[in-house]
Amino acid sequence: MQRDQTRPVRVGNVTIGGGAPIVVQSMTNTDTRNIEATLRQIRALAEAGCEIVRVAVVNRDAAAALPEIVRHSPIPVVADIHFDHRLALAALEAGVHKLRLNPGNIGAEHKVREVVKAAKDRQVPIRIGVNSGSIAKHLLERLGRTPQAMVESALEHIAILEKLGFEDIVVSLKATDIQMTVAAYEMLSEKVDYPLHLGITEAGTTWFGTIKSACGLGALLSRGIGDTLRVSLTADPVEEVRVAWAILSAMDLRRRGPLFISCPTCGRTEIDLERITAEVEERLKDYPLPITIAIMGCVVNGPGEASHAEIGIAGGKGVGLVFRSGKIVRRVAESELVDAIVQEAQLYLEERN
Amino acid sequence: MQRDQTRPVRVGNVTIGGGAPIVVQSMTNTDTRNIEATLRQIRALAEAGCEIVRVAVVNRDAAAALPEIVRHSPIPVVADIHFDHRLALAALEAGVHKLRLNPGNIGAEHKVREVVKAAKDRQVPIRIGVNSGSIAKHLLERLGRTPQAMVESALEHIAILEKLGFEDIVVSLKATDIQMTVAAYEMLSEKVDYPLHLGITEAGTTWFGTIKSACGLGALLSRGIGDTLRVSLTADPVEEVRVAWAILSAMDLRRRGPLFISCPTCGRTEIDLERITAEVEERLKDYPLPITIAIMGCVVNGPGEASHAEIGIAGGKGVGLVFRSGKIVRRVAESELVDAIVQEAQLYLEERN
Repeated sequence: MQRDQTRPVRVGNVTIGGGAPIVVQSMTNTDTRNIEATLRQIRALAEAGCEIVRVAVVNRDAAAALPEIVRHSPIPVVADIHFDHRLALAALEAGVHKLRLNPGNIGAEHKVREVVKAAKDRQVPIRIGVNSGSIAKHLLERLGRTPQAMVESALEHIAILEKLGFEDIVVSLKATDIQMTVAAYEMLSEKVDYPLHLGITEAGTTWFGTIKSACGLGALLSRGIGDTLRVSLTADPVEEVRVAWAILSAMDLRRRGPLFISCPTCGRTEIDLERITAEVEERLKDYPLPITIAIMGCVVNGPGEASHAEIGIAGGKGVGLVFRSGKIVRRVAESELVDAIVQEAQLYLEERN
Repeated sequence: MQRDQTRPVRVGNVTIGGGAPIVVQSMTNTDTRNIEATLRQIRALAEAGCEIVRVAVVNRDAAAALPEIVRHSPIPVVADIHFDHRLALAALEAGVHKLRLNPGNIGAEHKVREVVKAAKDRQVPIRIGVNSGSIAKHLLERLGRTPQAMVESALEHIAILEKLGFEDIVVSLKATDIQMTVAAYEMLSEKVDYPLHLGITEAGTTWFGTIKSACGLGALLSRGIGDTLRVSLTADPVEEVRVAWAILSAMDLRRRGPLFISCPTCGRTEIDLERITAEVEERLKDYPLPITIAIMGCVVNGPGEASHAEIGIAGGKGVGLVFRSGKIVRRVAESELVDAIVQEAQLYLEERN
């Protein structure tokens, strides 16, 4: 698959677009005024692999918290601004690395001009975020709630920035409807070369939201569309980051954390593969390195079949084998298989660091 | 999205292709010789929404169990056959509704002819299942492990059947690599109008396998490709069916079971939305009717915002509201919100039945 060519946009020390690896983002759900809680969550997100974090800036107090948050955040910070250009100016003053702001929504031209000048002076990009639920009235009347209306809306916001000589732009087009989202991104990606931020708006459950995000992002990524993504879930945002990485791993676009292979169960299977893989996955869910872990159901074909895995176990009745790169390195009691694989993974991590 | 036009194929009382709703399939993981266990699993699958079930027929004893399984199965049964044409004949004799069999793999021409004639006489279709892991040597040598090789392999099997005047065909092209799978299905769908059976081969964990399946199937379904699908997981096959339905719901192609909407949390949110939605989802995971359930975080905007939901709850401090189609119907203690929504869902089900 050929990735869509876009121009690069720098967000702090991270590049979005221009062929850079697809960037994983998330958003805090703390009260931004609570600096300590917000920074704690940002650190947890960064540890889980989040590369850019967005914080809501809903009022002056939230803006006042930004300098401290930006100073201590291990990853670039995006200020999410709606309507109030003074909050955008305060966020820029605070040193944020990107604004999420729709220039058509902040009113009088001089306000837009002021924000855009400040962003340009500081080389801070702006992400335009079109949402199917908040398309401007004149577009809705002319085009209805369609992909065309979403694209037109994005193009209007883009035109405002371009007219002011500002092209440090990222665009997103979020809808709850996947088909609409895909159609909108496809259309826009043919019209502009700004990097695209992907997301499926979903305020449902974690399980269903995960599946829906994977469907929608899989559909887009498989078309070569997307330079950065955020999975939206009604859940701890750390879970959003885990799902985002799993999607990128599944699409073979980026890797982080363990990838499991396990034999399909057969007559020789002597251990409870489902339980063991689930347990190992849970215990290694924050494991940062890409690693392939084989969990095999018998000691006959296990090591051989799993020779392309970095580490693995093959379970048998009473005894299990532990192997590295297909070679058996030790035997453990069957009851210790899960512990053994976690130990091997830690060892692998220590060796690499 | 326009669905790809395919010809209809009848599998018992179910139609695959020809514009019929996309059919959900799964496969038993019991020992087929254990008739009781196999039928128990088939019934559980059917209750979860499985519409066609496949059983492995690895030997004569398994084939001997088929008549009883077919007789008592509430849904059409597919016999999964490899290599041995006598098992295919026995399965047809037993009354199975579809064969999964690659005609190029069963040897001498008279054997193929015999199986195809028996299938034709009984109007039993054949699903050709190409797997990237088992492409014939001459194709691998010429084309490598590529989408082209998978498609060529399918076309060779199809040609064998067509030469014998048999066109009651369904085709699948499974690979572990999503990009390869998408490319192969796209290519084949331009060459033939046989209905396509979708699947992503995945022998990993339930969580990652769910995400990977959703990515791959989302990518295919968003292209209008696919007439039936099976999600493969290292898990209870009932889970495969749940995930399959969630994917179809997410893609807005079919609906079964609850769809949850919940407000994004805000300053007014007074209940633990994540916990409550997760609990309700778990308790209603086998709920058969399509129903939209709103779970709102406050009593101010809850009922209004959720007016397009069949039922809903809005949680507050100490007291919660229950509503139907946006109208408040009763108040319950906050601790009874989950029970209340489950009761409402049952009531809705009883009214509809």
